[in-house]
Amino acid sequence: MQRFVYQTTVRFTHTDPASYVFFPRYFEMLQATVEDWFTHALGIRYADIVIEHGLGLPTAHTECDFLKPCRLGERLGIAVVLEKLGRTSIGLRFDGAVDGDQRLCARSVLVVIELGNGRPVPIEGALRAKLEAYAALPDDG
Amino acid sequence: MQRFVYQTTVRFTHTDPASYVFFPRYFEMLQATVEDWFTHALGIRYADIVIEHGLGLPTAHTECDFLKPCRLGERLGIAVVLEKLGRTSIGLRFDGAVDGDQRLCARSVLVVIELGNGRPVPIEGALRAKLEAYAALPDDG
Amino acid sequence: MQRFVYQTTVRFTHTDPASYVFFPRYFEMLQATVEDWFTHALGIRYADIVIEHGLGLPTAHTECDFLKPCRLGERLGIAVVLEKLGRTSIGLRFDGAVDGDQRLCARSVLVVIELGNGRPVPIEGALRAKLEAYAALPDDG
Amino acid sequence: MQRFVYQTTVRFTHTDPASYVFFPRYFEMLQATVEDWFTHALGIRYADIVIEHGLGLPTAHTECDFLKPCRLGERLGIAVVLEKLGRTSIGLRFDGAVDGDQRLCARSVLVVIELGNGRPVPIEGALRAKLEAYAALPDDG
Repeated sequence: MQRFVYQTTVRFTHTDPASYVFFPRYFEMLQATVEDWFTHALGIRYADIVIEHGLGLPTAHTECDFLKPCRLGERLGIAVVLEKLGRTSIGLRFDGAVDGDQRLCARSVLVVIELGNGRPVPIEGALRAKLEAYAALPDDG
Repeated sequence: MQRFVYQTTVRFTHTDPASYVFFPRYFEMLQATVEDWFTHALGIRYADIVIEHGLGLPTAHTECDFLKPCRLGERLGIAVVLEKLGRTSIGLRFDGAVDGDQRLCARSVLVVIELGNGRPVPIEGALRAKLEAYAALPDDG
Repeated sequence: MQRFVYQTTVRFTHTDPASYVFFPRYFEMLQATVEDWFTHALGIRYADIVIEHGLGLPTAHTECDFLKPCRLGERLGIAVVLEKLGRTSIGLRFDGAVDGDQRLCARSVLVVIELGNGRPVPIEGALRAKLEAYAALPDDG
Repeated sequence: MQRFVYQTTVRFTHTDPASYVFFPRYFEMLQATVEDWFTHALGIRYADIVIEHGLGLPTAHTECDFLKPCRLGERLGIAVVLEKLGRTSIGLRFDGAVDGDQRLCARSVLVVIELGNGRPVPIEGALRAKLEAYAALPDDG
C-alpha cells in the first residue's frame, strides 16, 4: 500500500472568467479523489459501498486553503493523508499540487452512514483494517 | 441596511443519490449568496465589479460544517454575517437554515484582486464604507 | 393559467473563461425551469412528485441552439411551451431571452417513470388535465 | 491516427436521486471529451488554443438522445466521430457506451471564435489538415 495521489486535468468545466478553477469545483475533485482512493488504494469499489452495501459517506465538515490558483490545462495531483480514524468517521487531508507546487490544502471529515435511515455506522472489519493500514503510511506532506 | 438572507430552493441539480444536497453544491450556493449580497445588500452590482472594474473576489479559504442534510424542495435561507474586514480581504460567516432549523455554518475569506495580474487590491472608499456599515449590524446568529 | 417564464440571473458559477455561460449550465437552468413550472404553473410541487409519489421525470432527449451568449449578471427569462403531450412523455420548448433578445431555443422530451423500476408511467388524471390546459395556451413565441 | 474514445467513470458528482447520471453532467463529459480529443487525438493541446492562441470553441448547437441511463461506478466510453467540417465550425457525433452497450448519442456543432471579439475564425492550416485526417477515419459507429 502506498500514498494515493489522484491526478486530474483542469478543464474548461472547472474554470471561471479569470481562467482559474472556480472554488466549488475543487470540492468535486475532492469527492472524485475519495472515490478513487477507496477503489484503487483501499481496494473497495466506491460504487459498491453505495449500491451493494447501501452505505453513504457524506462529508460532515470540510475546509480548504486555496494557496495558489490552478489554470486551464494544468495537471493537478491530490494526495490523500488519513489523519484521524474515528468510530464512524474518517478524517482526511488533501494536498493538491501541480508539478510539486502546492495549490491547495484541504481537510474533510467523512461519516459512514446507512443510506436508508441516515444513521452513522461503526467502521469495522476489513474496512477498518484497510483504513488503519493506510493511516500507518508515512506522511510525506 | 439589514441582515441579508439569500433564499434558494433545493433542486434536483443539487441532490445526490441519497436525495440530499451534494456538498459541493452548497459552495455554489455560497457563491450565489455573495453575489446577491453585493448586489442587493451593499448596492454594488456584483457583475459590475468583475466586468466594469476588472476586479475578482476569489475565495482564499472556506470551511463548512454540514450540520443536517437538506432535501429536494426545501427552502434554504443563508444569512450573511461580516465577521472581519481586512485591508484586502472580507471574512464572512454563512448561517444556513430551513424554517429556523440550522443546516450548515460556513466561513469564507474573500480577497479582492485585480483580475489582470491577480494581485490583492486594498478595499477603500465607498466599498469599505458599505462593508463597515454591514459589519456594524447586530449579529442575530 | 398563463405562460410560465422562469427568471434567473447569470452567475459566476455559470460562466467560463470567456465570461459567458458555459453551455452545460443552460441545461441545469432548463431543469430548474421544469421544476418551477411544475410547482408554480401546474400547481404540483416538483419535490412531491419525486419524494411523495416516487416518480421521476428524466430527460430522454434534448436539443438546444445557443443563438447568442449570455453574460455574467444578465437576467435570463426562459419561457415554457408545451408542444406535445404523449402517453408517458412531455415535449417542451424553452425560449430563453434577455430583455426580449433571444439567446437560446431548446426542446426536451421528458418521460414520466416509476423511480423504483425505471418504467414509463402513463400520464393520467389531474396531471394530464393540467398539462392539457397548459398546452392549450396560445404560443406567443 | 485512430478513433478517439474518452473514458470516464460515473461518479457521485454526476448522479441524481435515482442514482443515475443527471443529464446536464453528460454535457460536461462531452466538453471533457472534446478537450481530450484535441489534446490526445489531434495533438493540439486544448488549453493552448484558449490561453496561447486566444481562441474559443463554444458549442453553438447540441442535441442528445439519452438511450439508457448510466449508473454510479460504470465506465462510460465516448467515441468521437467528425461528421462535418465547415469553414468555421466542427460537427461532431458522440457515441457513449458502457461495455459495448450504447447509452447515449449526441451531436454538437462547435464554432471556432476569437475570444476577444467573439467572431468566428476560419479553420485553416495545420488544424484543418488534422481535422480532415480525423474526418477521413472509417466510422465504426
